Amino acid sequence: MVTVRLFVTLKPSLLDSAGRTVAGSLQKLGFDEVQGARIGKLIELQMDKFDDARMKEMCQKLLANPVIEDFRYEVVA
Amino acid sequence: MVTVRLFVTLKPSLLDSAGRTVAGSLQKLGFDEVQGARIGKLIELQMDKFDDARMKEMCQKLLANPVIEDFRYEVVA
Repeated sequence: MVTVRLFVTLKPSLLDSAGRTVAGSLQKLGFDEVQGARIGKLIELQMDKFDDARMKEMCQKLLANPVIEDFRYEVVA
Repeated sequence: MVTVRLFVTLKPSLLDSAGRTVAGSLQKLGFDEVQGARIGKLIELQMDKFDDARMKEMCQKLLANPVIEDFRYEVVA
């Protein structure tokens, strides 16, 4: 069994309104050192076997929206 | 400026229904090697300075729900 850790993030050029809200809330709570936040997804997949081409296909078909999101993944164990 | 990468995940003992749906959808698309999926959050914070105690406080007060979620973070640069 293989664990794959996938990170899906909004493309840097796009405004992340949820992240902006989180950063604003932290500042209001007194965490003035926070300058910004961006929010993405972490998806951990349990797989029988890992194949890079198939993994990429999964991301493009279902797990990420390639128009607005970037993704990267790492095989954990 | 410091970047902190925070991973918020559902505690392993809890059922992740969104993850289960994702795993089921991948299987229906023909990715039979997928056995399970769990979905969490990835939050990237830009900070003036990093302090471990304050970072923990942010997670417990706002960024994670310590009742149902685990969190861990790493300082990137």
